[in-house]
This record gives sequence, C-alpha cells and structure tokens, in this order.
Amino acid sequence: MRQSKLFTKTRKEVPADEVAKNAMLLIRAGYIAKEMAGAYSYLPLGLKVVEKIKQIVREEMDAIDGQELIMTSLQRKELWEKTGRWDESVVDVWFKSELRSGAAVGFGWSHEEPIGEMMKNYISSYKDMPVSVYQFQTKFRNEVRAKSGVMRGREFVMKDMYSFCADEDSHLAYYESVKPAYMKVYKRLGIGEDTFVTFAAGGAFTKFSHEFQTICNTGEDVVYLNKEKRVAINEEVLNDEILESLGVTRKELTKTNTAEVGNIFNFGQQKASELGLAFKDKQGKKVPVWIGSYGIGVTRLVGVLVEKFSDDKGICWPSSVSPFAFHILEIGKSNEAGRFASELYTSLSERGIEVLWDDRDRSAGEKFADADLIGIPYQIIISDRGLSGGEVELKERLTGKTSFINEADIINTVLKILKNNGNAGKNS
Amino acid sequence: MRQSKLFTKTRKEVPADEVAKNAMLLIRAGYIAKEMAGAYSYLPLGLKVVEKIKQIVREEMDAIDGQELIMTSLQRKELWEKTGRWDESVVDVWFKSELRSGAAVGFGWSHEEPIGEMMKNYISSYKDMPVSVYQFQTKFRNEVRAKSGVMRGREFVMKDMYSFCADEDSHLAYYESVKPAYMKVYKRLGIGEDTFVTFAAGGAFTKFSHEFQTICNTGEDVVYLNKEKRVAINEEVLNDEILESLGVTRKELTKTNTAEVGNIFNFGQQKASELGLAFKDKQGKKVPVWIGSYGIGVTRLVGVLVEKFSDDKGICWPSSVSPFAFHILEIGKSNEAGRFASELYTSLSERGIEVLWDDRDRSAGEKFADADLIGIPYQIIISDRGLSGGEVELKERLTGKTSFINEADIINTVLKILKNNGNAGKNS
Repeated sequence: MRQSKLFTKTRKEVPADEVAKNAMLLIRAGYIAKEMAGAYSYLPLGLKVVEKIKQIVREEMDAIDGQELIMTSLQRKELWEKTGRWDESVVDVWFKSELRSGAAVGFGWSHEEPIGEMMKNYISSYKDMPVSVYQFQTKFRNEVRAKSGVMRGREFVMKDMYSFCADEDSHLAYYESVKPAYMKVYKRLGIGEDTFVTFAAGGAFTKFSHEFQTICNTGEDVVYLNKEKRVAINEEVLNDEILESLGVTRKELTKTNTAEVGNIFNFGQQKASELGLAFKDKQGKKVPVWIGSYGIGVTRLVGVLVEKFSDDKGICWPSSVSPFAFHILEIGKSNEAGRFASELYTSLSERGIEVLWDDRDRSAGEKFADADLIGIPYQIIISDRGLSGGEVELKERLTGKTSFINEADIINTVLKILKNNGNAGKNS
Repeated sequence: MRQSKLFTKTRKEVPADEVAKNAMLLIRAGYIAKEMAGAYSYLPLGLKVVEKIKQIVREEMDAIDGQELIMTSLQRKELWEKTGRWDESVVDVWFKSELRSGAAVGFGWSHEEPIGEMMKNYISSYKDMPVSVYQFQTKFRNEVRAKSGVMRGREFVMKDMYSFCADEDSHLAYYESVKPAYMKVYKRLGIGEDTFVTFAAGGAFTKFSHEFQTICNTGEDVVYLNKEKRVAINEEVLNDEILESLGVTRKELTKTNTAEVGNIFNFGQQKASELGLAFKDKQGKKVPVWIGSYGIGVTRLVGVLVEKFSDDKGICWPSSVSPFAFHILEIGKSNEAGRFASELYTSLSERGIEVLWDDRDRSAGEKFADADLIGIPYQIIISDRGLSGGEVELKERLTGKTSFINEADIINTVLKILKNNGNAGKNS
C-alpha cells in the first residue's frame, strides 16, 4: 500500500486519560482509536494485525478439529438464570438492556451457556461426539477499571472454543490436546519462550484450571515461575500441596509479572447438567455431556505483543503479525529514488508480498521516525545517495542492524528473508 | 470437509415462532441457529456463506479505494446528542445500557457519528481527502417486529462505508462511483439482473437517497419498476414530479415487492457541520467535510439469496457464495464407491477445491434429501451401480439436470465448471 493513501497518520498526542504503553503506541502509530476507556476501534493497520493473529489461532484450532461458527452477542436472560449467572452479585460485568417488549437481554461477556443450549439441537447420542466449536467473538464486559489499553477491554475480541465429549477419557484427551495447540499459537506470535502453562484456580468444577501466562512487566497477573523447569503457578493457588505435587520448592520459583494470554477450563459434566445438555450413552442411559472451555484473548494479544516488542522509538512487530512484511522508505527529491522505489514496490506487490511504501513528500527524519513508530520488521531505505553507489539500505527494526544491498540483489534478499521467517513461523 | 465430521445435522423441525422461509430453510439445513427473534447464530456452513459475501463486498469496496477498519459497538451518548439522535423519539431502535460509573452507553445501530468523530484525528486539510473507510460491523437494532428471518435482525452484519471529501465535485463523483461498485457485488451474487438502483426518500440532507432493491416476493418494500428501462421508484417518493424527471409514466411502472439490499446517502456538509468535522480548504478557510454513507446488509443478503434461490426441496446457492463448490455423495455399501469417493475428495481438496463429502452411513434417500436441502450447486453422486459402468453422476442442484461422466473425466469436468463459474463471477 502507498502510505500517501493511508488515511491514518502518526500522532504526537494521545487522549489525556490514556495511561497504558500499548494503547499509547498503537494510537500514536495509527493502529487504533480510543472510543472510551476499554473500547478501541481498529484502524486499517490495526485490523491487519488482528486478522493475522486470528488466522494463526484459526489454523491451530482447525488442526485440532475445531469448527468455526459465530454466536450472537444478544443473549436471553433465561439461559443464564439456569446456571445462576444472570445475577449481578455472581457476574458483575454484564451489560444488560431490554427489548421493546420489556424483556431483559444481555450482551455476551461469555458464550458458555448459549453454546451449550444451541448444542442441544445437534447432540443426542454418544455418536454425535467428540465435537469442538470455536468463534472469534466480540465480548462485552462492564469492567470498573479499564486502564490497561487493549489488554483489558470493555469490548474486545476473544477466541472461545468449547469441546463436547461423551466420556471422561476423550474429554481429558481433548483438554490436553489444547495445551500444545495453544503453545503453537504463542510460538508463532514470537512469545513461545516467554509463555507458560500455569496452574490457576479451578472454580466449582475442577481443582485447577490452566492459564497461559506471558512474562510481561505491565501484566496484571503474578505468577511464581521456574523458567528452566517451565513450571508456573498463579499466586492465587500457591501452597505447599501444589508445590509438592509439582515437585518444586518455593525457593526455586521467582515471583514474576505476567499477562494472561489464554485459559482453559474443565467443566466436567456439571455445566451440561445445569443446562440440561444430555445424550444417550452406549447403554442407552441419558447422561450429561463433558464440556471444556478454551479462551484466547485476541485483541489482548495485540497489547501484549506491543508491551513486549517495543522500544523508545515505537513498536517492533514480530513478522508473523506485522501489518506489512516490508516498509519501503523513499528518501530524496530526485526522480531516481522515486523510480526505483516504485519499481520495487510493484515487483514485490506482484509477488503477493505485503509492502507499505512511504511515498509521501516528507523529510527523511520524519519518515525514519514514522517507520520506527509503526514497527514493520524490515525497512528498505531507497535514497539518492545510496543509489548513486548502486545500493539500497536494509534495516531490521528490532535490532536496528543495517546492511547495504546491491540494488540488483534486493528482491532476492527480500525473498530470502520471507523464506526464513516463513519456515521459522510455520514448521517449527 | 467430511460430512460425518460436521457437527450440524439437517433438522425437520424449526422453532415454533419461526415464520420466514429463509430462516426455516437455513435452520433446517444447519446454516443458522435461532437465539431469539431477529438474532441468529451462524454455524459452520452459514459462516462460510457470510464470509464469501463479505469477501465479494470487500473486493469491490477496495476497488474504489475503501480502507477497511472496525469501530466499536459501544458508543458514547455525547456523540449522538450532538446530532439529536440519542433521543428515543428520534431513533427508536437503540439498545442502551450503562457503565458501572452510571454513564449511559449505546450499542451501535449505526456508526455515522462515531466515524465522523474519529476522523477528526486524521482530517484537518483538504490534502487529507478524499478518504473512504468501511467496516463489516455487527449492528444492534431494537426492532419491535423481527419476523423476516435473517432479512431483518435485531443483530446483523452490515458493511457500512463512509466517504469524506473536500468539495462537492469529488463528493458527488465518489457517490456516483459507489453505484456501479454495488451493482458489481449484486451481479457476483447472482442477483444483478433483479436488482435496481431505486429512488427513495432523502431525509434531511438531500432530496433523494438511492436504494438497491432486489425483486423478492417476501421483501418488505414496494417499488414501482420498469425492468426494461431499469427505472425503480420506492413507493414512498412516487409522485408526478419524480416521474417527469425520470421520463416515465405511472403506466409504464409495475408495483413490485422488493427487498432492500443496499442504500447510499448523501449527507452533503450537514452531518460534518453537526459533528464539528471541518478542514482548511485551499484558501485556508475552515469548512465542513462532505460526507456520504453507503450500506450493504450482509446477513440480510444471505436471507434474500435463500428467498430467491430455493425450491420445495431446499436451497440452491449461487456458486459465488456456496459454502462448498461440490458435494460428493457416496452411495452404496461396497468398498468401491467409498474408495473412489475418498480418492476424488483427496484429489480435489489437494487442488484447493472446496468439497463436502457425504461419507455418512445413511441411506441414499437421506443423502439425496440432505444434499438438496443444503443446496451446494453441484452434486457428484458416486454409486456402486454407476461405477460398475465406469461412470459417476453429476447433478446441477438449481436445474436438477443430471449427466453421466466417465469416471476418468470427472476431475477435468470439475475444473471446467470452476473455470466457467470463475469467469462468470469475476470478469463480467
């Protein structure tokens, strides 16, 4: 895309009430706009990042037989009364409204109850399972505090998946299969090493749930962590019993700030029992379905990535989610730089490579600053001076490392980089 | 996809309160599930159709320089008070709720006001325009009656686009460019011939708006139509003045039931004036932006397509939006039909062709009935009897036309059909 056509511009100011680094950088670089605390619009650059994260998650959920659908945000009060979760003393994040008829409706903060109800149409026998369904859904949560930018939203995008199994063995096997699938997602996002399967409170149905916690200074969670053993325990469940069962001592663990990037819950048969979702087993007996629930905060991940991959100049996107693969900066007033940039842009675009071309009439200093703020992983700097020596400059945003490439070799260099990143991203 | 893995099943029953043909067929075939009147979840098959319609719309909006983004559903009361549209006596479809702080918030039934407000960050000079932005957004409208299935929702997906121009000429030129772009969308959806640019009430800003109305028995609109001259007038604005200006007489027009599948509004400078969205023109004078607003009801189109392309057996999707291109029906108990079906499924899938393979252990009658209900345009019927003569059967869902293809030629036949449909879809 030609940057001169992009309607967003980098900004110096952010809204006065914005305090989170991730939102400040994303607003300044033109990825998001703030509608209110905890509610952000995603502008063209931001939407591209969200869609890339969604696609990575989609591929990994499809790989464990997830089937994608999309539920409604409008939800019926009656469904949630069955499980006691309409009551605001139980769930305090509801946005509620009412139909013209006066009937109360809620806006989905979770979809466990409606999905369970919907599945009654399709599950009646043990032969109808296992089934796993997921969606990318906008969730509404009426948070009192929403000061962590896109890391804690009143409106945010979540991937939520639900598994339905006919017996405990297949249920637990599916639950376990989600852990490596989630870890593949985080690895592809560049946070695999820093993300840990974490023991957390289990709620009514099970002793523990599992969270996926990423080391992050500004994260809202506190985890006790042993990196080498890859053991992580949320502080809420840290006690002698769990330490013993995991074979670690308190001393081996380091108190660490983390951001929750996923969680998985085992509901056993209790949720289905409350909802009346039952099936006929092999003996013809009606029994409740085994349900698991699996979440990944998609827009929260945008924030976590910015918190982790940024410096005083701006964002440094991992290649797998960057809105563009390369940023061509055309520097200089001569026709030569413009001509070369235009040809390179066309050549790369024709190959299906996503390129942002800064073709604006701006100073070199402005273009460098904007490119560093926007954070595309590779900048190709095409200047009159470079071209006079037959060279273009390649700068890696994350490391700041620059190299000079013979102008005839730049396309091959680009292809080599993509090949390396592609391999690192998908096959590892 | 193997049909045995698809969690949805065809159903005989629909919810007792469902009266619309489109929703009844979509529910029975497993495309959607009803959450409440006017709110439907999209199951795997239905989501595929929605995404295909979105992609067609996206391509045509990108072709007229639209830039995709996504706004929030949560909206601030203050914004809508500026234009007088928070008031329920003016806008009677609001869903409203409140933040924990007690501040009122609305759920977006339109995004004109928030988009105009957001653009203040990016438009300050005539050099910043023209700009056109669009989104695929879930809209919430608190309709009193919601009895038309997915054609009138309390929650539905809409493509809404907004153009921002610096002068009347470029504004009107953009407005006019949207008409052929919309018509390309409808043509690709198979309803080009039956869809008419229609004169409709203009509201406060302009004498007329333009609707895109598709001939549809169960549509909620009434249009006076001359098919040959392609003149269409919404009954709400039918009078002598408009007839004269269009050079038609009342007698030449036929009263026709239609469904609105798009509309475009010219706001002139008034909307920007109310919102305070102004820019410096070439003379350095601050003037309000020229705004246009352009909608296409994405999920409504799903309903219109089903109303138009269905018969007593079920749905007959146009190729451009069908969830799969081909439906392989494996008929017979021998290994031979299964083996051939499996090989064909693999060959086609490896070529990236979307195939649903009915590999279920069901009777031929059940498979035929389900395939006709689901409505994939081509059925490839692989039976023991056919294979014993070296043939498979190809059935066109819409016409019911069948032909027998030598088993060695089936892949070439499939490729030829795709080529014809691809050409018909995109290049016409």
